[in-house]
Amino acid sequence: MPDLDRVVREIADEMRARPDRGTVASYIPELARADAAAFGLAVVDVEGRAAVAGDGDVPFSIQSISKVFTLTLALGMAGDRLWRRVGREPSGSPFNSIVQLEREAGVPRNPFINAGAIAVTDLILSGHQPREALGEILRFMQALALDQTIAIDEAVAASEKRTGFRNAALANYMRSFGVIENPVDYTLGVYFHHCAIAMTCRQLATAGLFLAHDGRHPLTGHSVISAERARRINAVMLTCGHYDGSGEFAYRVGLPGKSGVGGGILAIAPGKASVAVWSPGLDAAGNSHLGRIALESLTKRMGWSIFAA
Amino acid sequence: MPDLDRVVREIADEMRARPDRGTVASYIPELARADAAAFGLAVVDVEGRAAVAGDGDVPFSIQSISKVFTLTLALGMAGDRLWRRVGREPSGSPFNSIVQLEREAGVPRNPFINAGAIAVTDLILSGHQPREALGEILRFMQALALDQTIAIDEAVAASEKRTGFRNAALANYMRSFGVIENPVDYTLGVYFHHCAIAMTCRQLATAGLFLAHDGRHPLTGHSVISAERARRINAVMLTCGHYDGSGEFAYRVGLPGKSGVGGGILAIAPGKASVAVWSPGLDAAGNSHLGRIALESLTKRMGWSIFAA
Amino acid sequence: MPDLDRVVREIADEMRARPDRGTVASYIPELARADAAAFGLAVVDVEGRAAVAGDGDVPFSIQSISKVFTLTLALGMAGDRLWRRVGREPSGSPFNSIVQLEREAGVPRNPFINAGAIAVTDLILSGHQPREALGEILRFMQALALDQTIAIDEAVAASEKRTGFRNAALANYMRSFGVIENPVDYTLGVYFHHCAIAMTCRQLATAGLFLAHDGRHPLTGHSVISAERARRINAVMLTCGHYDGSGEFAYRVGLPGKSGVGGGILAIAPGKASVAVWSPGLDAAGNSHLGRIALESLTKRMGWSIFAA
Amino acid sequence: MPDLDRVVREIADEMRARPDRGTVASYIPELARADAAAFGLAVVDVEGRAAVAGDGDVPFSIQSISKVFTLTLALGMAGDRLWRRVGREPSGSPFNSIVQLEREAGVPRNPFINAGAIAVTDLILSGHQPREALGEILRFMQALALDQTIAIDEAVAASEKRTGFRNAALANYMRSFGVIENPVDYTLGVYFHHCAIAMTCRQLATAGLFLAHDGRHPLTGHSVISAERARRINAVMLTCGHYDGSGEFAYRVGLPGKSGVGGGILAIAPGKASVAVWSPGLDAAGNSHLGRIALESLTKRMGWSIFAA
Repeated sequence: MPDLDRVVREIADEMRARPDRGTVASYIPELARADAAAFGLAVVDVEGRAAVAGDGDVPFSIQSISKVFTLTLALGMAGDRLWRRVGREPSGSPFNSIVQLEREAGVPRNPFINAGAIAVTDLILSGHQPREALGEILRFMQALALDQTIAIDEAVAASEKRTGFRNAALANYMRSFGVIENPVDYTLGVYFHHCAIAMTCRQLATAGLFLAHDGRHPLTGHSVISAERARRINAVMLTCGHYDGSGEFAYRVGLPGKSGVGGGILAIAPGKASVAVWSPGLDAAGNSHLGRIALESLTKRMGWSIFAA
Repeated sequence: MPDLDRVVREIADEMRARPDRGTVASYIPELARADAAAFGLAVVDVEGRAAVAGDGDVPFSIQSISKVFTLTLALGMAGDRLWRRVGREPSGSPFNSIVQLEREAGVPRNPFINAGAIAVTDLILSGHQPREALGEILRFMQALALDQTIAIDEAVAASEKRTGFRNAALANYMRSFGVIENPVDYTLGVYFHHCAIAMTCRQLATAGLFLAHDGRHPLTGHSVISAERARRINAVMLTCGHYDGSGEFAYRVGLPGKSGVGGGILAIAPGKASVAVWSPGLDAAGNSHLGRIALESLTKRMGWSIFAA
Repeated sequence: MPDLDRVVREIADEMRARPDRGTVASYIPELARADAAAFGLAVVDVEGRAAVAGDGDVPFSIQSISKVFTLTLALGMAGDRLWRRVGREPSGSPFNSIVQLEREAGVPRNPFINAGAIAVTDLILSGHQPREALGEILRFMQALALDQTIAIDEAVAASEKRTGFRNAALANYMRSFGVIENPVDYTLGVYFHHCAIAMTCRQLATAGLFLAHDGRHPLTGHSVISAERARRINAVMLTCGHYDGSGEFAYRVGLPGKSGVGGGILAIAPGKASVAVWSPGLDAAGNSHLGRIALESLTKRMGWSIFAA
Repeated sequence: MPDLDRVVREIADEMRARPDRGTVASYIPELARADAAAFGLAVVDVEGRAAVAGDGDVPFSIQSISKVFTLTLALGMAGDRLWRRVGREPSGSPFNSIVQLEREAGVPRNPFINAGAIAVTDLILSGHQPREALGEILRFMQALALDQTIAIDEAVAASEKRTGFRNAALANYMRSFGVIENPVDYTLGVYFHHCAIAMTCRQLATAGLFLAHDGRHPLTGHSVISAERARRINAVMLTCGHYDGSGEFAYRVGLPGKSGVGGGILAIAPGKASVAVWSPGLDAAGNSHLGRIALESLTKRMGWSIFAA
């Protein structure tokens, strides 16, 4: 069994030395300011040992990684009713495609493409004020990460709101089919804000631990979600977590994972550890370029692929 | 650890008692003759112990399950060059869709939809006569299943050839883009014949063992493929093995698997066992209805989900 | 040469006797209140003679027929620059499809599908307040129809605004590509209001006369648009005027025309007459069922098809 | 009224002087040998006067223009039953798209895209040997063109057959839905051969005359088709005759027309004349670049647009 601390350190060093870095997302102006040279990695195992390297304690915008946590929260609130509003099949399309919605009566293919995550947000919002719903999401993240200082980057949220016309199109489209029930502006407001939560790799890996531990947070002992639901969230992450690069991620990394356009990726090694990596440059499918390479190297060295004997 | 023999027997009994059986595929006339009441299950673990129940020793048409083995064979022959001809992303479409091919210059999304498997067959055929290529595929299956009696059901192959216009459309379409290089009739002939191989659940589970054992067949000790490739084939099975029901299968069963319209499913529990199930009735996505339910029950009772801690 | 007055009267009588009436549009609640039994027909020839029958003097919601006039107005304001924002090819899709927009970078296929008409409205709005732009459109209609009493039905406009989520999706989508430049709410406000203009068949036929007369209004002598542009607007009406029923309309009626979900159709017989028909029941493609049949009968009896010798 | 002879001569001179010539089709190898500098124009009016200029007496491959004549022939044989196999709406897609077929159960959108023309050919073939069906099509063309020497260019037909994989895909796809009933090879054989008929502009314009004259050939007096069907064929030519450039052709030229990838276009001025133009270089939509410009100039100078007063 290789030494986790050493492996994490070596990978961080290797990644920082690489010249290929992908392209920093520019469609949200505020995100375009991220430092392309940044690289952070944090692994927290199910016994609570953390290995952190590089910029693993620098906060970044988690963006779509928040969708894993809103899905967890919404499943807790609505149970399997949730699946009437959103499917769980890979989409075969980019993250913001609207074509599939037209073909399938406004029901998004899965909770990890934008449309699906907006529908999940709408479910969390039901019967609440946007501020309340957002507070609940934020407190959930803080509790999972064991850190009350986690906050929303209001500049990023405002930047997304100003330029999020494509998400507004998706939301209005779903509203026309009744898949979204709250005022579109409310739902989008909550959505833009939870995407704008800023976290470090260490916080994110800690927050994801319950998925590596059959739904129970190993550090607090609290049951976050049932073991079956935890397995199933992992399954959806594996098949749908990286948009139209999900097959590639499963093929190369072999772990359930969820990426965000801020350059972060959360990956789960069931029974072993929760991993967060961050590097702002993205590949063509919108996933962190170095992040994916680092995770491929990590699972290989640690023998963590869920597809290995 | 539950007793595998007992679990397998109980599941077979439960399945045979269920009234819901799906619909036997009718688009290949010869397949429509299958007995809707049949149910077979075989589990072979990585130490060679077999548990077989129900009609687990009755041969059936493996159909698309053959694609796992042609992919393995083609990777051995062509290596990663294969991925120039076929992708590895879920398609978000039915098994015989041609829409995606038009959008992506004739390159099929993955080796498990029909178009992709035809492209893989074309690669195996390169420079050979159809009869030779087919012989090689059949010998490969016999060697993996440790059974020289495995044969092609010529009536099924002939039936597919007579009615396989949609596959002929896919093949000609890819040929127009140069993704297929051999005469279309040759490639389709080999394809229809390897889909028409008849095997029992016991033979199929035995043949799949190398995928549960990092590429080495545990009963012969032979290395079929590298450990990395075995992991990666499992990954492609998980994301793409059940057409537009792949997400659902991952969500419910939590194992890499590949279904066929003959009603069979091969599933792999890495490090543990290879499983084959057969029941001819299909669900809306074209996958064995009881087969999927049986596998869900099996992984749950045995704790084999790759997404569990 | 048949007597126009008699033909118009006979057609109105025949149509009112028919039991088949199509289905009144229900997606805008206010429109659902229309009287399914209503039928109006008005023909105004290029010498100013009007033949009006049935409910030809009852106002109805012109809906998408307004798109012919906003296109005319926008071409007068922006000239051929307009064609950078919108194409002029038939779409092969329903009136409110968003699929095509994704494939073609947010540029709508033609000015007569909803997306295209919203883009044209956005062009008219440029640099103005919504109220000013709307006033200009309304005055243009009044001038063409020779009737200052023409007004907007505010209840219909409000109803569309409350339920127009799909149009909001289209507008936001185009905004994300920069095809729309004004605030989405402004553009949609003007769009919903000009669709809610109420006119009679007589007023509408009068307003369309310039298109039958090479761009010059025969009753006022004013040049509304150049002869070339008038011909070209007629061409776009013929190929794109009835959504995914445009081919059928050309095949059966043989005149340039534009339908609205209020049940009206404006048709142009170049050099001869302008025709407006109204019957609220729609066919599957969203065009007035009896309106189309009445026009087919009219062109046949009058020998007005542009495809005849 | 401008002098037709002079106008035709002037246009031919202008076209031959232009440097922009489009791109000669290369996907059928034999067509790629066409002389990019060639330009021919022939106008035959409904009284039989012919004006011919440039290479108007040089034969070229009529390709898809043959679809106008096979549609006419098939309507004569099968009547309106034909429309059960093929629609009459513009497709909004390139000439050889297969996407629409998947969406609409194998029924092609119109008889002028490849799929639709193959379905029409299949109807003509019903109950005959390919040789007989082809003989009938050829005799029909000879009779309409008043020229028994018109023949099929076997080199072109063979070239298409060798490389026509995309058409084979379309045909097999439709066969899988039962839209095509004859053996695919038979239907494609007839299709490739009638596309390979070689004709001069003078012959083609003569052959099209019946469409400008309500279905009756003005030079022989024979009724080819009813007046209503002639009008309707013109309507389908206008909305669908130039693939995804049909709107543009209607907008600029204002006449029903049908193009072929050999560089020919047949256009009909109802009640006035039949026009054939030929220049091998194509535009992006696959229509003759100079051919379209020449026709635009011709209708403008002669005042023949069907959209003009």
